[in-house]
Amino acid sequence: MMNDAQHAEKMQKIKAAKDRVNEERQGEKGLIIVHTGAGKGKSSSAFGMVMRAIAHEMPCAVVQFIKGSRETGERRLLTTHFPHLCQFHTMGEGFTWEVQDRARDIAAAQAGWEKAKSLIRDPAIRFVLLDEINIALRNDYLDPAEVCAFLRDEKPAMTHVVLTGRNAKPELVELADLVTEMALVKHPWRAGIKGQAGIEF
Amino acid sequence: MMNDAQHAEKMQKIKAAKDRVNEERQGEKGLIIVHTGAGKGKSSSAFGMVMRAIAHEMPCAVVQFIKGSRETGERRLLTTHFPHLCQFHTMGEGFTWEVQDRARDIAAAQAGWEKAKSLIRDPAIRFVLLDEINIALRNDYLDPAEVCAFLRDEKPAMTHVVLTGRNAKPELVELADLVTEMALVKHPWRAGIKGQAGIEF
Repeated sequence: MMNDAQHAEKMQKIKAAKDRVNEERQGEKGLIIVHTGAGKGKSSSAFGMVMRAIAHEMPCAVVQFIKGSRETGERRLLTTHFPHLCQFHTMGEGFTWEVQDRARDIAAAQAGWEKAKSLIRDPAIRFVLLDEINIALRNDYLDPAEVCAFLRDEKPAMTHVVLTGRNAKPELVELADLVTEMALVKHPWRAGIKGQAGIEF
Repeated sequence: MMNDAQHAEKMQKIKAAKDRVNEERQGEKGLIIVHTGAGKGKSSSAFGMVMRAIAHEMPCAVVQFIKGSRETGERRLLTTHFPHLCQFHTMGEGFTWEVQDRARDIAAAQAGWEKAKSLIRDPAIRFVLLDEINIALRNDYLDPAEVCAFLRDEKPAMTHVVLTGRNAKPELVELADLVTEMALVKHPWRAGIKGQAGIEF
């Protein structure tokens, strides 16, 4: 246990280091953000960021690539309360294992990507969430090279784009400004607890 | 590349496995959830879950242990739009390195914990977020044994409690039902980009 004087000295040092770093960091840019990994929180934190963007009156758009068949709480909340600030487009038709029609999956993913491109190109939209697009990329429904090239060459400088889903492609991780891996440490499904309202959807 | 028949067979197998697991998982309980790790998304995903809970009309409460001095977008959004569903209490007085007064930090953390206990005990509240409480625990401002004992013995069965912050205590990880570690893969601060509205706050 530190005494009070040691504590004050330690905190003063941390504050000085933080202040110095904040002085150096003056840049602003639209970020390419990836949430991947097997843990929870990839989509939840992206929706938390949508909430932040809405709070700052930044127009947002969400394209859901996979979870088409499920009405989620966040979708209902956003479309009910903030239709002027957040567009919501669902292109998939349910998790990919709910159907076994590859041609339909590819068509849905491609339609989602076309919609995503038009939303990202729109300079009025400041924040675009491509939810579960990594699954579509992983399943070869979309071409990672095309997605990366578009983000690199056509994304407006100040637009943030968040891409979620497990197994993010290495080229996307390479391109991104901010990458977080949500790692599974412990999950209640292993103890027989089902997905619950407010937690999973 | 799989052909269509192989794809259909693979997806059918995945669906069968998922359906089987969903049949087995019939339990519901209030979860103790921990978001930890050095990466981004610990608080964002917790606030995304608050949004989900609100969408399901579940009364929520947030206690912020550390970020007291900063007006965040999510706080403004929640208190403006959903005051009937989400209480918001900020007990800290800014990041701990902004002040160098250990006694004040401890008093603020203890006040936050007293508030947290009353919120968790309230059976009308279904979801309680203890934001950055892990920092208070890590700094010895709160006793981990007391926090764990309270959650184990006094949390109502159906109430979800989410605890965020780096360096979660091992005894809390042991107690929790769901633990995610947000791992830092890449961060734009390293490239001189500052924290931006809609992303960091």
